[in-house]
Amino acid sequence: MKQIYVIGIGAGDPEQLTLQAVRALGRADVFFLLDKGEDKSDLAHLREEILRRHASRSHRVVVATDPDRDRSVATGAYAPAVDAWRRRRGDLYQRLIAEELADGGCGAFLVWGDPALYDSTLAILEDVHARGAGDFDWTVIPGISSVATLAARHRTGLNQVGRPVHITTGRRLTDGGLPDGVDDVVVMLDAHQAFTALTGQGLHIYWGAYLGTPDEILLSGPLTDTLAAEIRTTRAEARARKGWIMDTYLLRRSPRGGPT
Amino acid sequence: MKQIYVIGIGAGDPEQLTLQAVRALGRADVFFLLDKGEDKSDLAHLREEILRRHASRSHRVVVATDPDRDRSVATGAYAPAVDAWRRRRGDLYQRLIAEELADGGCGAFLVWGDPALYDSTLAILEDVHARGAGDFDWTVIPGISSVATLAARHRTGLNQVGRPVHITTGRRLTDGGLPDGVDDVVVMLDAHQAFTALTGQGLHIYWGAYLGTPDEILLSGPLTDTLAAEIRTTRAEARARKGWIMDTYLLRRSPRGGPT
Ligand SMILES: C[S@@+](CC[C@H](N)C(=O)[O-])C[C@H]1O[C@@H](n2cnc3c(N)ncnc32)[C@H](O)[C@@H]1O
Ligand SMILES: C[S@@+](CC[C@H](N)C(=O)[O-])C[C@H]1O[C@@H](n2cnc3c(N)ncnc32)[C@H](O)[C@@H]1O
Repeated sequence: MKQIYVIGIGAGDPEQLTLQAVRALGRADVFFLLDKGEDKSDLAHLREEILRRHASRSHRVVVATDPDRDRSVATGAYAPAVDAWRRRRGDLYQRLIAEELADGGCGAFLVWGDPALYDSTLAILEDVHARGAGDFDWTVIPGISSVATLAARHRTGLNQVGRPVHITTGRRLTDGGLPDGVDDVVVMLDAHQAFTALTGQGLHIYWGAYLGTPDEILLSGPLTDTLAAEIRTTRAEARARKGWIMDTYLLRRSPRGGPT
Repeated sequence: MKQIYVIGIGAGDPEQLTLQAVRALGRADVFFLLDKGEDKSDLAHLREEILRRHASRSHRVVVATDPDRDRSVATGAYAPAVDAWRRRRGDLYQRLIAEELADGGCGAFLVWGDPALYDSTLAILEDVHARGAGDFDWTVIPGISSVATLAARHRTGLNQVGRPVHITTGRRLTDGGLPDGVDDVVVMLDAHQAFTALTGQGLHIYWGAYLGTPDEILLSGPLTDTLAAEIRTTRAEARARKGWIMDTYLLRRSPRGGPT
């Protein structure tokens, strides 16, 4: 039986690793890293630093190339394209586990933030396992998500007393606006700053980019045209400077309809 | 200036502490623990174990009694009662910070799971700070929530590809059912097993109690009357045996309407 760890490594700060994650990192013989061909070398460095600090001396790293994936499908608009991509990635994982992991060996996938949020690793492992391919078992180590980091850095809760919180994508916010009956909405995977269309509605925004990293940027306040423009400019400049950006935000409606 | 850490300590497993949390635990001079008069001695033991392992040798523990709080307001039905309770708790925090923390000292509040989810500590500290009471600053250390733990233990994501996830309370689920346009709903603070009213609708349930602890119980499957009854019985028995229970669950609708 082969053992696989899916390890949530936090949103950008190596100190966000849990003791459980540290232990799992030390146990793994092989780390499977996916080269997504992105220009996010800071993230690659963070991963390297984590391995340098916590992996066993005898560990191996296997770098595999991510099956091409049309970026435009990232938010799930085209289910068939996603299915095909997931199948290809399943083939890749199956091969990695079959060829790169010895019987009785222990492999690990490192996942940004928490593996349960907008990440395909768990679904793909389940697919591969369901194929009956390879005798392996897997354990998931939860991680600090970018959502938890966003809230912590802004020192705010995600929900108001007894009220729900909704986590969604930029595309869905653009398509449907703020869902009814929800006062707190976290938005991820937003390449187009969907919040821009929601100014002047009494919302408060808590925005964060590169959360947990030395480049972290935080902006917050009533969501006016001015603040929306400031976030857009800040974001564009940071992105131009670094070559990539990851940002997340919380939109909050005051439940009593008052000013935020 | 006094410094306060609000430390997320995870959902029940001391290994869920992050390296950041461990560091903050070691720095604090004073830990403020609230005695909620609950019969959850396992939780108190876990907290003690965390302090024993990670607090500095010279730390002090100040135990304060939580202002009485009608349990029925926990899910926010009676905003005025909650406001009054929060004010009383603010008074308590203000007094703790003023009287128990030396100038330049470092205090800490330990919070279950992640401080951003259904916890009042951050809102109360903000209130106290807004009163202009006491010269203190505070830092929030995110933690592994029961939600992240639930997903990890069931080895499932919280959201489906490009789709939202909604986190809510048992009371709101009872009052409003599953929100429209949402296929994944996490339910917390559910004393009345609201899922019982949702059997036979093609939902899948992932249920977990005492997550992260040695008593952890997991049940999952299509949400039929049989499974709902099994969860209710299991829950009632565990609760009777231990004197308390904490449980959380994810309800999932298959987005394509097929079987789950
Ligand atoms: C594919 S999802 C992965 C989320 C990850 N599993 C988590 O738990 O945070 C990527 C999205 O997460 C958010 N994100 C991840 N890391 C971030 C960071 N360090 N700062 C800001 N946003 C981040 C962004 O919204 C980004 O578009
Ligand atoms: C007041 S809220 C606090 C949530 C906490 N801040 C977190 O991040 O998990 C308490 C609710 O969290 C859930 N919960 C907390 N710890 C849990 C555990 N170990 N197992 C199952 N549910 C838990 C239950 O739904 C419980 O009613």
